[in-house]
Amino acid sequence: MLIRAFVPAHITAFFVPVIKENPQLSGSLGAGINLNKGTNVFLNTEEASLERHIHVAFNGEPVKREQAKITYYVTEKMLPEDFVGEVEIWQYFDFPNGYGFGNSAGGALGTALTLAYKFGKTLLEAAKIAHEAEVIHGGGLGDVVAQLTGGIDIRIREGGPGVAVVDNILRDEYKVLVVPLGRLKTRDVLSSDIVHVISREGKKSLDTLLKNPTPETLMNEARRFAEATNLMDEELKEISREIDKVISLQSSMIMLGKGLFALIKEGEVDKVKELLLDLNLRFDILDIYWGKPIVGRWIGDE
Amino acid sequence: MLIRAFVPAHITAFFVPVIKENPQLSGSLGAGINLNKGTNVFLNTEEASLERHIHVAFNGEPVKREQAKITYYVTEKMLPEDFVGEVEIWQYFDFPNGYGFGNSAGGALGTALTLAYKFGKTLLEAAKIAHEAEVIHGGGLGDVVAQLTGGIDIRIREGGPGVAVVDNILRDEYKVLVVPLGRLKTRDVLSSDIVHVISREGKKSLDTLLKNPTPETLMNEARRFAEATNLMDEELKEISREIDKVISLQSSMIMLGKGLFALIKEGEVDKVKELLLDLNLRFDILDIYWGKPIVGRWIGDE
Repeated sequence: MLIRAFVPAHITAFFVPVIKENPQLSGSLGAGINLNKGTNVFLNTEEASLERHIHVAFNGEPVKREQAKITYYVTEKMLPEDFVGEVEIWQYFDFPNGYGFGNSAGGALGTALTLAYKFGKTLLEAAKIAHEAEVIHGGGLGDVVAQLTGGIDIRIREGGPGVAVVDNILRDEYKVLVVPLGRLKTRDVLSSDIVHVISREGKKSLDTLLKNPTPETLMNEARRFAEATNLMDEELKEISREIDKVISLQSSMIMLGKGLFALIKEGEVDKVKELLLDLNLRFDILDIYWGKPIVGRWIGDE
Repeated sequence: MLIRAFVPAHITAFFVPVIKENPQLSGSLGAGINLNKGTNVFLNTEEASLERHIHVAFNGEPVKREQAKITYYVTEKMLPEDFVGEVEIWQYFDFPNGYGFGNSAGGALGTALTLAYKFGKTLLEAAKIAHEAEVIHGGGLGDVVAQLTGGIDIRIREGGPGVAVVDNILRDEYKVLVVPLGRLKTRDVLSSDIVHVISREGKKSLDTLLKNPTPETLMNEARRFAEATNLMDEELKEISREIDKVISLQSSMIMLGKGLFALIKEGEVDKVKELLLDLNLRFDILDIYWGKPIVGRWIGDE
């Protein structure tokens, strides 16, 4: 029997990294959006041999332990000590890796949830292991707890699952435009000397958003943060300004990937499509994913 | 424009009441199940008159302030101070009031969510007010945070939204049988001298469930708790024993209503139906509601 988990992609609008010795107390403050595409993980286990073998594949291609450290970490922590046999973990990503869509956390959480389902662990047990793997291996700080919550998330207390407090903006009239342009390494940015600027500007943005928690404030602060931290380069700014001409809220940069996102209204979809086709840029228009991740037996296409 | 919120019904399997001076630190530990029927709340506002008027209706029937204290409390706390005009709150319940389905919390949370949506507040701001109203007016202690989470919930830390920690059992092969037989007043039970027995047995059940968080343990502990606390009377026990003959997990009592519930497998549905028709008892068979409550603009039937 295959077990399947779906974890939404998560894009970050602005953030404040908080790193402590205990991974379960580490995390981030900030805000972002969960999307109705993301990561699907399928688990197949066979208790057969005398040894334990873990196999991982990304988008159908087998990958080695070094390329899937987070998944191996999660799998080894979640498997019962006495389990021997074959464990196959198939991860499928709707967005490219390294572009800021929370794929790493999606793979970690999806893997943990399928194993939890299979071996009788709880949602929080699974999510804590996924968060720990993310923090230890530099995958991300706030994606797991945001993905656990869904919606337009505001992370008002940092930490792992059961520690973090995540709130939601309640609005349903927007779709999400994403324009993925390239990679940015989370780890490189977080180890650079602009971290203190990120923290300062992220806190400022969070304070402003909490005073008036609307999509408008979210996008204004996302853009202000992206420019104040200098993470947004000229190319991104230029495309962003073009997009802003045809939508009502400001667009901004995906943290952390080389890419843009915006909240757009139904009536703006056609103009946005026309513009991005003109600019010859890859893009996608998605719905906000409001719920929790899903895990269960996999019967086939829904 | 109508705003609509759906909040799942929530039945409690066992619990430990924790009452403190601060309502946001009060709550309960325990476990329960969210159902795919529950409470729908519709909000209509009209900024018109020079005065503020709040109108509340349960299942289409207007009710007075004294009959809807919790809803009035929530509405007055959630409305912007300077709001004048008409506020209509229509609450529709899929289950009867007082039978242990969390209607009171469903009405409170649904009302808070529609008002939050309308007036630009967040999910947690709304949920905190709903929890506070519940605690202050004796509606319930753990329903709001359980309904916010969905699924088969385990409340491992008490408190209001943002304080409580709620976990989930990850299993999807069960449906939920409910047999509502009559009312029980939460407030009467919580002010009686069996509260210390409830606390002791509830903690025992929670410890056992956390060691082995499966539907089997949940139902065994639910039944053990119901009998050890003497909340389950002879009539309930007798029907429960009849039900147990045709299902694989134990049935137990809904806390707190005069009624029974059970987790049943697809293949047991027909036998259960036959039995309950024979016994001439009202019943319903539902799915577990996995997600968060829903709030948004109401366009019409989905």
